[in-house]
Amino acid sequence: MEIIKPRILSGTRDFLPEQMIYRDFVTGKLKRVFEKYGYEPLATPAIEYFDILSGKYGEEGEMLIYRLAYRDGKTLALRYDLTVPLSRVIAMNPDMVKPIFKRYQIQPVWRADKPQKGRYREFTQCDVDAVGSDSALVDAEIIAIINEMMTELGFQQFEIKVNNRKVLNGITEYAAVNEKFKEVCRAIDKLEKIGIEGVKAELEEQEIQADAIDKIFKVIEIKGNNDVILEELSRYLGTVPIAREGIDELRQIYEAMGYLGVPEENYRFDVSLARGLDYYTGPIFETIVKEAQIGSIVGGGRWDTLIGQFTGINIPATGTSFGLERVIDAMGTLSLLPPIQTSVQALVVPFNEELLPQGLQFVSQLRDANINSEIYIEPEPLRVPLGYANRKGIPVVVIVAPDELKEGKIAIRDMRTGKQEAVEKTNFLSKVQEILKRVEQS
Amino acid sequence: MEIIKPRILSGTRDFLPEQMIYRDFVTGKLKRVFEKYGYEPLATPAIEYFDILSGKYGEEGEMLIYRLAYRDGKTLALRYDLTVPLSRVIAMNPDMVKPIFKRYQIQPVWRADKPQKGRYREFTQCDVDAVGSDSALVDAEIIAIINEMMTELGFQQFEIKVNNRKVLNGITEYAAVNEKFKEVCRAIDKLEKIGIEGVKAELEEQEIQADAIDKIFKVIEIKGNNDVILEELSRYLGTVPIAREGIDELRQIYEAMGYLGVPEENYRFDVSLARGLDYYTGPIFETIVKEAQIGSIVGGGRWDTLIGQFTGINIPATGTSFGLERVIDAMGTLSLLPPIQTSVQALVVPFNEELLPQGLQFVSQLRDANINSEIYIEPEPLRVPLGYANRKGIPVVVIVAPDELKEGKIAIRDMRTGKQEAVEKTNFLSKVQEILKRVEQS
Repeated sequence: MEIIKPRILSGTRDFLPEQMIYRDFVTGKLKRVFEKYGYEPLATPAIEYFDILSGKYGEEGEMLIYRLAYRDGKTLALRYDLTVPLSRVIAMNPDMVKPIFKRYQIQPVWRADKPQKGRYREFTQCDVDAVGSDSALVDAEIIAIINEMMTELGFQQFEIKVNNRKVLNGITEYAAVNEKFKEVCRAIDKLEKIGIEGVKAELEEQEIQADAIDKIFKVIEIKGNNDVILEELSRYLGTVPIAREGIDELRQIYEAMGYLGVPEENYRFDVSLARGLDYYTGPIFETIVKEAQIGSIVGGGRWDTLIGQFTGINIPATGTSFGLERVIDAMGTLSLLPPIQTSVQALVVPFNEELLPQGLQFVSQLRDANINSEIYIEPEPLRVPLGYANRKGIPVVVIVAPDELKEGKIAIRDMRTGKQEAVEKTNFLSKVQEILKRVEQS
Repeated sequence: MEIIKPRILSGTRDFLPEQMIYRDFVTGKLKRVFEKYGYEPLATPAIEYFDILSGKYGEEGEMLIYRLAYRDGKTLALRYDLTVPLSRVIAMNPDMVKPIFKRYQIQPVWRADKPQKGRYREFTQCDVDAVGSDSALVDAEIIAIINEMMTELGFQQFEIKVNNRKVLNGITEYAAVNEKFKEVCRAIDKLEKIGIEGVKAELEEQEIQADAIDKIFKVIEIKGNNDVILEELSRYLGTVPIAREGIDELRQIYEAMGYLGVPEENYRFDVSLARGLDYYTGPIFETIVKEAQIGSIVGGGRWDTLIGQFTGINIPATGTSFGLERVIDAMGTLSLLPPIQTSVQALVVPFNEELLPQGLQFVSQLRDANINSEIYIEPEPLRVPLGYANRKGIPVVVIVAPDELKEGKIAIRDMRTGKQEAVEKTNFLSKVQEILKRVEQS
């Protein structure tokens, strides 16, 4: 028989148990916070009709959609993000948004991209969106979720940047370069990456005049606390209606944040935040963890016109997306991941084959007590199963040996301290639980 | 702009919140039991190289593999099951099986099948397998997991059928039709569906002689309790070495089940169980819930030779697969699914727009107390948000109204009883918790 070389597509990964434990830890926290805010789970199929996805991700994005070699090879495609499928679900179930539909969705997406550090062909998005309301209170709630999530995951220093596309609209109107809105946004969005001179050069390349560039920079360089920014924005853009609308929404967000108990230092208005995607229509958000040096790990905003592409009638929506891989990478860099290597809590080791039946009974008792346990059934010298427990990070080993058994005892070994103790068989569960409690508290 | 009709590929489904709550409920229970038995999570990418999957699922199965229109349209494919990807992972990480690798995996798989009732193009498998040991004790552990899972999910009457491919090998040897092993297995496997005469007809079609058919039926019709079956099997097949090996493994399983505390009435040896898949090599299992009339909902067995297709060296493995959709369908039929419609526990309703700030503060307090809550921000007559809570199944509504507020109170409504009570603001959390506790206990 021909041997097939086992291998995997680059840009995709297997998640072995240790990584899965981290992933489950983070998604568990995300789910908990999403649900606390009244958001409910949704899942959509991996396979979508291509025309549902087409025209939503820009020219570059469109090239990265994986298609299936099914029928004509053009009809079916793999999910590229979670926002467009949500839009499709809403369009198919329009009654769901009365008065609001709040969902979270944690699923992989696929992009036929060139893999590189931090960029994968299959990765998991964790999206939370509210559909059906144009109120800035809902945008505020999304920011409150981001804040709670970052705190809950253990990040000490993070910054949620908030801006409003309408303010950016106001800026281009103020600078009289309305028709170059997209180009201005894309240039501004690179401010942190390429610096002031870089952005200026890019705007010049777009044939924007020097005085317009000056005007743009006057506004996007507004600095100060949130109060100051709102005031300065009003001073520059107060006469531009679209900007006034945007500033007003930011003001409502600002107030709501206070009622929702979000500390002011955790978020800040940043007029230079633009976000790449075309479909944002109002408030936009982005979260960075400077220490982790990993770029934005949460991004989102209001997208009031996407659903209209399926229904002809716009339905307002806002939300954000956590990149699971980036969150985990940032947590890893900052040592915020739990030190757990395995979900196994106890290993039962029968000293010899004759003691297997008793080993099975002990492991069964442990499981009945809700302790994750396995039994070592290979007949090997004790050091081998101990080495296995050690490598794997199993905290407790229960040794079933003939001498102790004669006295009605079994040996319990705390793998962190290496201490081993013979206890009465009737007491062994509480002894194991005692060690596990110590491990949990440490 | 052209409107794209929102639609979905037949055989795939969106899971709206109510369905997701069921799915999360069941997978949560599955994960809990898998981990209790020392199995750890694993995930593999949806995209695999086609030649990794090819040649593993039989001719019919091969036709159902979805391929990607990538490069030549032949290189990449979508995951078809979870066993072959596990084999690939083991082949790429051979050290992982020393002495044993125990994993569970809950992921969707795709088949380009013709959709029909209970058959989907995308569905979720929940697999649990142990790799690295040829001991029948591990097979016994898998059966114990199935037993605990079925009990844990609330099934009262289920039957885990157990057989051994080696016994079936013994039967064909006993009947001197060795060379027709696959055909005999496939025919026997249909016994329940097409009856004795049907199987006989199919064996005759395979040009198996009448006396051989008689011999086959003598064995597969052995009935009785597990003890009796083992004895009778030995009587008929005791002189056939491969059968003796199989019977001996069944005997070991039988003993281990006792030590693991699995009640004897929950599983039974059934010599007519054959299972369709080619790759089983030892003990095989299948679970049916007769009342649910849905066929097998859990199936599995030992597969000692699959990994060898990637490494050239066989590595023993055994396990089972729960079909999430089938489990949920069966639970639905038997009313075993929880009555929860939503994860939202409380809805805060500000009586008018002026009370929104206070509404935000109350919803924030509820969330701080770990109560899943949302706020109704649209200014509408009270009956509208109450209707919303009712439709959605939210158990508690907190009404922030001006009259009560003047007295330092807010109104709490138990949506199940319809009773509404004004309580001191300082007491509102405990009142909400009290109602939620009652709901949980009912």
